[in-house]
Amino acid sequence: MYVSADTIWVLIGAFLVFFMQPGFAMVEAGFTRAKNAGNIVMKNFMDLALGSIVFWVIGFGLMFGEDISGMIGSPDFFVQNDYGDTYPSMAFFIFQTVFCATAATIVSGAMAERTKFLVYCFYSVILSAIIYPISGHWIWGGGWLAEMGFHDFAGSTAVHMVGGVAALVGAKILGPRIGKYNADGTPNAIPGHNLTMGALGVFILWFGWFGFNGASTVCATGDEALVSMSTIFVTTNMAAAAAAATTMLFTWLRYGKPDVSMTLNGALAGLVGITAGCDAVSVAGSFAIGVICGIVVVLAVEFVDRALKVDDPVGAVAVHGVCGALGTILVGVFSLEEGILYGASSDLLVTQTIGVATVAIYVAVTMGMVFKVLDSTFGLRVSEKEEISGLDLEEHGLESSYADFMPTTDEHFTPAAIPVIDIKIPEVTAAAPLPDGSHKLSKIVIITSQIRFDALKLALDKLGITGMTVTKVLGYGIQKGNTEIYRGAEVQSHLLPKVKVELVVSEIPVAAVVEVAKQVLYTGKYGDGKIFVYNVEEVVKIRTGETGYDALQDFPIEEK
Amino acid sequence: MYVSADTIWVLIGAFLVFFMQPGFAMVEAGFTRAKNAGNIVMKNFMDLALGSIVFWVIGFGLMFGEDISGMIGSPDFFVQNDYGDTYPSMAFFIFQTVFCATAATIVSGAMAERTKFLVYCFYSVILSAIIYPISGHWIWGGGWLAEMGFHDFAGSTAVHMVGGVAALVGAKILGPRIGKYNADGTPNAIPGHNLTMGALGVFILWFGWFGFNGASTVCATGDEALVSMSTIFVTTNMAAAAAAATTMLFTWLRYGKPDVSMTLNGALAGLVGITAGCDAVSVAGSFAIGVICGIVVVLAVEFVDRALKVDDPVGAVAVHGVCGALGTILVGVFSLEEGILYGASSDLLVTQTIGVATVAIYVAVTMGMVFKVLDSTFGLRVSEKEEISGLDLEEHGLESSYADFMPTTDEHFTPAAIPVIDIKIPEVTAAAPLPDGSHKLSKIVIITSQIRFDALKLALDKLGITGMTVTKVLGYGIQKGNTEIYRGAEVQSHLLPKVKVELVVSEIPVAAVVEVAKQVLYTGKYGDGKIFVYNVEEVVKIRTGETGYDALQDFPIEEK
Amino acid sequence: MYVSADTIWVLIGAFLVFFMQPGFAMVEAGFTRAKNAGNIVMKNFMDLALGSIVFWVIGFGLMFGEDISGMIGSPDFFVQNDYGDTYPSMAFFIFQTVFCATAATIVSGAMAERTKFLVYCFYSVILSAIIYPISGHWIWGGGWLAEMGFHDFAGSTAVHMVGGVAALVGAKILGPRIGKYNADGTPNAIPGHNLTMGALGVFILWFGWFGFNGASTVCATGDEALVSMSTIFVTTNMAAAAAAATTMLFTWLRYGKPDVSMTLNGALAGLVGITAGCDAVSVAGSFAIGVICGIVVVLAVEFVDRALKVDDPVGAVAVHGVCGALGTILVGVFSLEEGILYGASSDLLVTQTIGVATVAIYVAVTMGMVFKVLDSTFGLRVSEKEEISGLDLEEHGLESSYADFMPTTDEHFTPAAIPVIDIKIPEVTAAAPLPDGSHKLSKIVIITSQIRFDALKLALDKLGITGMTVTKVLGYGIQKGNTEIYRGAEVQSHLLPKVKVELVVSEIPVAAVVEVAKQVLYTGKYGDGKIFVYNVEEVVKIRTGETGYDALQDFPIEEK
Repeated sequence: MYVSADTIWVLIGAFLVFFMQPGFAMVEAGFTRAKNAGNIVMKNFMDLALGSIVFWVIGFGLMFGEDISGMIGSPDFFVQNDYGDTYPSMAFFIFQTVFCATAATIVSGAMAERTKFLVYCFYSVILSAIIYPISGHWIWGGGWLAEMGFHDFAGSTAVHMVGGVAALVGAKILGPRIGKYNADGTPNAIPGHNLTMGALGVFILWFGWFGFNGASTVCATGDEALVSMSTIFVTTNMAAAAAAATTMLFTWLRYGKPDVSMTLNGALAGLVGITAGCDAVSVAGSFAIGVICGIVVVLAVEFVDRALKVDDPVGAVAVHGVCGALGTILVGVFSLEEGILYGASSDLLVTQTIGVATVAIYVAVTMGMVFKVLDSTFGLRVSEKEEISGLDLEEHGLESSYADFMPTTDEHFTPAAIPVIDIKIPEVTAAAPLPDGSHKLSKIVIITSQIRFDALKLALDKLGITGMTVTKVLGYGIQKGNTEIYRGAEVQSHLLPKVKVELVVSEIPVAAVVEVAKQVLYTGKYGDGKIFVYNVEEVVKIRTGETGYDALQDFPIEEK
Repeated sequence: MYVSADTIWVLIGAFLVFFMQPGFAMVEAGFTRAKNAGNIVMKNFMDLALGSIVFWVIGFGLMFGEDISGMIGSPDFFVQNDYGDTYPSMAFFIFQTVFCATAATIVSGAMAERTKFLVYCFYSVILSAIIYPISGHWIWGGGWLAEMGFHDFAGSTAVHMVGGVAALVGAKILGPRIGKYNADGTPNAIPGHNLTMGALGVFILWFGWFGFNGASTVCATGDEALVSMSTIFVTTNMAAAAAAATTMLFTWLRYGKPDVSMTLNGALAGLVGITAGCDAVSVAGSFAIGVICGIVVVLAVEFVDRALKVDDPVGAVAVHGVCGALGTILVGVFSLEEGILYGASSDLLVTQTIGVATVAIYVAVTMGMVFKVLDSTFGLRVSEKEEISGLDLEEHGLESSYADFMPTTDEHFTPAAIPVIDIKIPEVTAAAPLPDGSHKLSKIVIITSQIRFDALKLALDKLGITGMTVTKVLGYGIQKGNTEIYRGAEVQSHLLPKVKVELVVSEIPVAAVVEVAKQVLYTGKYGDGKIFVYNVEEVVKIRTGETGYDALQDFPIEEK
Repeated sequence: MYVSADTIWVLIGAFLVFFMQPGFAMVEAGFTRAKNAGNIVMKNFMDLALGSIVFWVIGFGLMFGEDISGMIGSPDFFVQNDYGDTYPSMAFFIFQTVFCATAATIVSGAMAERTKFLVYCFYSVILSAIIYPISGHWIWGGGWLAEMGFHDFAGSTAVHMVGGVAALVGAKILGPRIGKYNADGTPNAIPGHNLTMGALGVFILWFGWFGFNGASTVCATGDEALVSMSTIFVTTNMAAAAAAATTMLFTWLRYGKPDVSMTLNGALAGLVGITAGCDAVSVAGSFAIGVICGIVVVLAVEFVDRALKVDDPVGAVAVHGVCGALGTILVGVFSLEEGILYGASSDLLVTQTIGVATVAIYVAVTMGMVFKVLDSTFGLRVSEKEEISGLDLEEHGLESSYADFMPTTDEHFTPAAIPVIDIKIPEVTAAAPLPDGSHKLSKIVIITSQIRFDALKLALDKLGITGMTVTKVLGYGIQKGNTEIYRGAEVQSHLLPKVKVELVVSEIPVAAVVEVAKQVLYTGKYGDGKIFVYNVEEVVKIRTGETGYDALQDFPIEEK
């Protein structure tokens, strides 16, 4: 006889945890660039779709099947046995399925904007089918960590740290995005394209976490369960709130201003951190865990970015990996019954640390092998051209996920990241003055493809050009653009995005600029662009009132 | 004595199904153009608002009132009788209300971007008040299909196919959007303006579907109900997952790349397909139904687009109409108790087919009449000018739903769709060289309204202009723009969007270009625009190094 | 012995009401400008985070602690006592926490786009810790209004009106956004940057309201509770639907077109209005309340905007303040048991009115003091420069929440709002014709920062320039831009947004334009910009066919 309340509770948990999928998708899409938005959403979507399938085929059995020497469950292909309790077997199965999808989807954020879609699908299948179920078995399936008394109530380690470590290993092997690091190793920021959507994602995740933690009682009858699930709602919310507030304050102190995207990460850090012990700590304990995670996540993001030089666009390693591990260990400190803070022995603390370390090593080693094999067979990473053009276009034939909005010039490719061309900067002899003593003023307009823009900027810089105006334009030419398919129909695209660079020179000869531009932009293929030269009658620098030649000694845009 | 668990379960279903409304709104807005985003959201919003009212006034009674000869329920205006069971009457009423709103809202996507708002409101009221309740009565209200044993557990036919067939009929009568079809009948893609938001909508729908299918047990007590609702969660999720994965693979094979928006449709196809039999099939059966729907939806989108030449911007006909019918029929195959796959007779298969066919004909005939009457009285379709300017502006006085973002030039009006003007292309005699043997180079700049841009492009093409640069600009003139009201206050808009077309000529005389542009752009009204001519000192083609006259023999942008 | 159904129901309420937070965040972000999106999201986020903390520390005790003479609860710091009933104490606590966060977050919308972040955090803490709990105690904590029989079932007054009155007082003290009012006091519209997202927010709020009202039974056992919660689902939905439909029709009649954003407000008005009496009125009564609120909200938005001259970007005062008060009072009319419409005495109506008036005065006085103190210490409002540049940049160092999209020129600063500079318009003597009788044509290009653009437009207008073309460009200069930190890494921004203004003159001398531009744009700092002058060979006005001098007598863009 199944119990209605328990079954309803588990199913509520299932739909709430399911809903964390769009939470991840929105965070990851919002924190990365528009040109990869369709791709990142697809990866999240496939984590769920492929994960649901393979977890049914094999993963669930490995995790919850009959225990084999504490290490693994007996494969129970297609979930034939009964895993029910006071709820039907299928209720437990769907609840566990959405947990598995969560672990897989964490990785997509850290590896965003440069991983091949095909390879990502392989990775996702392997994690959901084998890697996650095995360590999950140790913790929740009656394996050796469960036997040891390892306490990971809703998955700080089992779900989040597994995802976070896989993310770290994957992002490390993959290497940083083009433009992320300067030649001197300092990181550049690559801002996300939609922070509002990212914030929505975080709110959705927080919402789903009530199911993630609260329904992990998998029971809603009896005073103990009812008190536990109520308390978990409070501790979960409090850790998130405390972490968000702490990160806000901490970034304010550290960077001078409260950082929006980091504060959003802060809330997630608190949620990840409380997950292991949400049932075991007091509200004050959850507050403390939130504060700790809210600080640690900032330091961890910086550490990953600067010390490890791992490019993690969304902070997945810091949030899920670091705070997952930390939150698990902190149960040994803050647990009301077994935490050292309340006078208990360090037994639990030791157990927690052993569990975290073992699982971290297990995931790092196995996923390291998986990624290495994938890298040496299919290649993990898209080509440079694909990365610059965007994965939406190259991997999915999607010109833009935002077809009706004008994109900005992507200015976040820094010189260090530009394939350096050996440019010969011509000797510049200042152009002679005109017979009347004045200097000829010329406007040079260069229309070319966006991809070479940064190299052009760098080369003109070397030539001594100190200012230019850049406009995003559309070019229409005799050759049609590439044909892409959208929903089975051809996309007409005679108009291709180009940049128009305008500069006015007087001292530097036009010929020198033309020469440099030709060197940088020449590929011999259609689309290299054109250069136009016009006469300028006058130029006035507003700040100084200088005109003509003098007004050009430094040019239009100096600073804000 | 009502049962807590049952009532809670039905109310959970109500709020989950309610939440499918923003799911539809986001999918439909995301898959269509930015200039119609406010309008499509309003239509979805009114489906819910008007539907909630009229379903209360009359619809619910026609659907669930006392049966009259198997055909219709006795009108029970304002739901006065008791429809409760182990839950209060009002719980059942709200659950059914949100189902009704779902059926209505399916249509808005297929008829998007060209249907008058007023007429849409009328349609929506009629569907919710009469059309949907009658076939709903047959299936769920104790009518003749229920008597026959027709199995449509949660509404593949009763909800989705009804919406899908209405969508097909409506979109057919309405005709395609301007620019959707070329003169030769081949379709063009008109990409959506926000695929991330579309993806969020799909995730939300999948989430809501746990209530749509899971809570359709309208009971959460007793082992049978608890097993059923748990199993339904699994079959629903599995069909969606299998369909999404299948569509992803199938489009990859078919189009060369995994199609993002089609894959999103794929998940919905699986969800629609499993809805009829989610309680009756095994998990493997749901997987099979998902795979089938994941392939069929792609073929159906193409069939609707290419063979029927019905322009359905979001794929509603394929997803809800085709997969709704298919999913219902497949219950006769995959039902564990009555499916032919498990050795049962073909009785259920026949019944399912009869039910699907009858309901499809019923909806097609009645909605066909409704749309025809609306078309001949108010007119279904907005004017060409309104469609090109966008329904947000014309129907709601909303300049843009995204006031702070620069829109792209809408390049998806193809020549075939442009009202053809009889342009006389002047005889072009190549301009004579200058005395020194060189050729004069001239830049021509045309600033005009966006609406005529494609006609201009076409005409210049005929003249032999092989390249141009297009920039989106804002024009400020002596006459103010139209005054629109936003939240009761006037919108200031002195700056109007314009396009600036730049081209450089040498062989083709300036006068010829001016002559052609004047022919195309002249309307005699303010806003026809201006043409400017400048001297160009030099032009360099980077690819070849050619300069001057030679560099212009084909112009700036050739290909990617 | 706690009851499973009751506990589950309260916790469902908690997560649904929690989810209203992103609802508010999306509405507020969508209805305001892109340059403040990160800031408004942060404020909503902090309402939740800080509110969760301080409501635990002190607020909850003040609201639900042991009653002290009907006025206030005994402080119960950190919620140590037991507030459980048939559910655990913590279930009630989390449910009340999310209600508190709702009240706080209402204010951020009305004070959007100009309030200092720091001060906002202080306000939010004070409201959640003290102001809201005290009036909440009167109504729900056993205080004097509860004793009087004041009926506010789920918080039309306790939550919404408290938020709405605080919003009114705050926005009044703060003053309107730059550009909101003309010199003659008429309001300008400042359109929101993402209405689709705003609509999603409204849908989310409607969804969450099923928990807000439905779970306020805090009981799900026994026929009475089950009937009540079912009925509440229906009345809540009906009021929202009726209000949305009414607002749509009413704005159609009033403004000529159905207003999208006002209709979205309409639904919220209905929801706020039904909240007090959702348990006490019939479905028809809820319909009537919806209709009333749907009309009143429109009039109230206009009244606030035009008569009070309070700039409330999202309509929070009208929706939450006015309709909160109205809905509460209407319980005295429509209550089935105590409403005058059903023959009861006016006792309840009087009580409701007293309650509304007292709470409104209480909040106005206390919050007025709070805002005044904050204003005279820290200052409520950001500087003019910060407001124009946007709070994302200035308060959070976030260049843009939408880094990959090209923003439009912000054209919604109206002349009245531009700091007027005393510009001397030079005497213009028409330039003399050339020897051949024609007139020299010159193009003047001004590249400058966006902030001064409107002043420039105004000054050129006075000079007699009747048209210009404006392009959004990026300027690259010798000085780097400001360095901002994003997630701990420096944001590279060598390219700064600029506007390029192009105009062609003949009669008006170039020197006069240069003179005026210099006066307007000169600040003496880097970034003032440059002016370029070019020769124009010919200009053609398409509408009239005029060329040269004649074509310029009014210039490029006249009207749509």
